[in-house]
Amino acid sequence: MSERDFARWRARADAALARCLPDPDAAPRRLHAAMRHAVLLGGKRMRPMLVYASGELCGAAPETLDAPAAAIELIHAYSLVHDDLPCMDDDALRRGQPTVHVAFDEATAVLAGDALQTRAYELLADAPVPDATRVALFRVLAGASGAAGMCGGQALDLDATGNGHAMSVQALKRLHALKTGALIRAAVRMGALCGGADREQTEALDRFADAMGLAFQVRDDILDIESDSTTLGKTAGKDLAQAKATFPALIGMVASRCLLSDLATTMDAALSDFGESASALGALGRLAIERDR
Amino acid sequence: MSERDFARWRARADAALARCLPDPDAAPRRLHAAMRHAVLLGGKRMRPMLVYASGELCGAAPETLDAPAAAIELIHAYSLVHDDLPCMDDDALRRGQPTVHVAFDEATAVLAGDALQTRAYELLADAPVPDATRVALFRVLAGASGAAGMCGGQALDLDATGNGHAMSVQALKRLHALKTGALIRAAVRMGALCGGADREQTEALDRFADAMGLAFQVRDDILDIESDSTTLGKTAGKDLAQAKATFPALIGMVASRCLLSDLATTMDAALSDFGESASALGALGRLAIERDR
Repeated sequence: MSERDFARWRARADAALARCLPDPDAAPRRLHAAMRHAVLLGGKRMRPMLVYASGELCGAAPETLDAPAAAIELIHAYSLVHDDLPCMDDDALRRGQPTVHVAFDEATAVLAGDALQTRAYELLADAPVPDATRVALFRVLAGASGAAGMCGGQALDLDATGNGHAMSVQALKRLHALKTGALIRAAVRMGALCGGADREQTEALDRFADAMGLAFQVRDDILDIESDSTTLGKTAGKDLAQAKATFPALIGMVASRCLLSDLATTMDAALSDFGESASALGALGRLAIERDR
Repeated sequence: MSERDFARWRARADAALARCLPDPDAAPRRLHAAMRHAVLLGGKRMRPMLVYASGELCGAAPETLDAPAAAIELIHAYSLVHDDLPCMDDDALRRGQPTVHVAFDEATAVLAGDALQTRAYELLADAPVPDATRVALFRVLAGASGAAGMCGGQALDLDATGNGHAMSVQALKRLHALKTGALIRAAVRMGALCGGADREQTEALDRFADAMGLAFQVRDDILDIESDSTTLGKTAGKDLAQAKATFPALIGMVASRCLLSDLATTMDAALSDFGESASALGALGRLAIERDR
C-alpha cells in the first residue's frame, strides 16, 4: 500500500525537479549540465517523499507540495555537491555516479551547488499557496539549512574529523540533529504547513521527524561499516578511514542497533494519534531504519 | 549632501549585518568567525546603499529596508568567498584582508559561503513588510543570484577565462549583466518594492540600474589595469594575467572611457523624472564610474 504512495511521490518529485532545473542546451551549458547531474542522476528522494507524506496526512493537495518537495531536494543535492569536494569529504562516487567535481570540475561544482541552493528559494516564491504560507516555508527551509542547521552540522563534523573518537554521544547527537536532522524535520514541517496542521499535530510530527533524523544517521553509520561501495552508491568505509565520530565507534554496534529500535518505538508513538492515515509516513520512517543504501 | 546619506546608509547596513550574523562565541565557532570575517571586515556596501537610496526615493521607511539591504550584501559576500577559492579565482587578498580560505581553510570557506547565502533568505522572511512584499523580495533576490543571474555570469566568466580575447563585446556585456548587473538591478528593485514604486518608476529605476551595473564593471576593468593592489584591496592586474575578457582588452582604453561617459548620460536620463529627490541615487551611480577601488 505504502509502496504505491512511494512510487507516486517519487514520480512527482522527479517530474518537479526535472521541470525546475535549467535547460542543458542553454548557456551557460556546463553549469546547467552540472546542476542536472547533481540532482537528476539518482537519489532516493526521501526528503521530498516526507513532504508529500506529511502534507497529504494533514490534508494538502499534492500539487501544492511539489514546490517544497523539489526545493528541499535541491538543498540536499547542493549540500552533497559541496560535501564531496576535495577540500571537504573528497569523494569521487555519489549515487553510483561520478561526483560533480569529477564529472565536471571543482569550480563548476562550487557554482552548481550555489545555484541549486538559490533555485530552491526561487521555487518556494512561486509555490501555489498563500503568501503567508510561502513566507513560512521560506523560514522553515532557510532556518534548517544554514549555520543553525545543516551548514552548522557540517561545520561541527569538520571540527570533529580526525579526532571523532574523543566526542561524547551527546555531542554526536547534536551534530547529526543539525547536519541531517534539521532538513528531515524541515521536510515534515513544510508538508504540515501546506496542509494547515494545528499546533498539536505539528508537535507530534516534529517528534516523529527528530527520531527519524537520528535513526537515519545511525543507520548510515552502520551501513558505512557493513556495506560495500557498489550497494551504497558511494564510498563505503570512509568514516573509519577519516576517524570520524560514528555511533558504532562511540557506543558499539549492539548499542547502535538498540538505539535504532528505541527510535522506531518513538516514531510509532509520535504518529499514533493520526491512526491508519499515517501509515505511509510511518513506513517512510521505517525505511530510514531498514534501508540497505 | 549625498555624502551624509551615504554615511547614514553605510552605518545602517553595517549595523544590520553585524546583528544578523551568528555569535562568534557560539559553536560552530570557526564557521561563525568565517562568516563574520567575510562580511564585516570592510566592503563598500554599495548594494545596500542602493537599496536604501532607491527605497527612500520611492517613499519606504529606512527600517523596512534593513533586511533587503543586509540580505543583498550577504549574497555579494558569499559570492566573493566562493570566487576567491583556489579552484575559482585563487585570490589571497580581498578588501585589504586575507580571503576566507586563507584566514581559515577551504572547507570552512565553502561552508561559510553556503551559510551566508542561506542567511540572506532567512532575513527576508522576517523583513517588516507585508507577506506579499516579502515574497516579491525573495523572487527578485533569488532570480538575480542563481543560474539566470550572478552564478550564471560567473559560469560564463569561467568558460571565457584563458580565451577571453576571443569574446565579442556583446557577449562580454551579457556576461557582466549577469555576473554584476543582476545584483545591482536587484538592489534597486528591492528598494523600489519596499517603497511601493509604480510600473513607470520601476522601469526607470531598472534602466538606471542596468547602466550602473555595466559602468561598474567597465570601471572595474580599468582599475584592474591602472591601480595597484594596496589601493584596490584586492590583487591588481589579475585580468591580464588570466587572459580574461575585459572592456579595455576588447575595445581599448579610450573606447572604454567613452562607454563610461555614455553610461553616465543614460543613468542621468533614467532618473530625470524623479527630479532633485533622486540626487543621492544619482551620486551613487557616479561613484561606480569615478571610484578608485
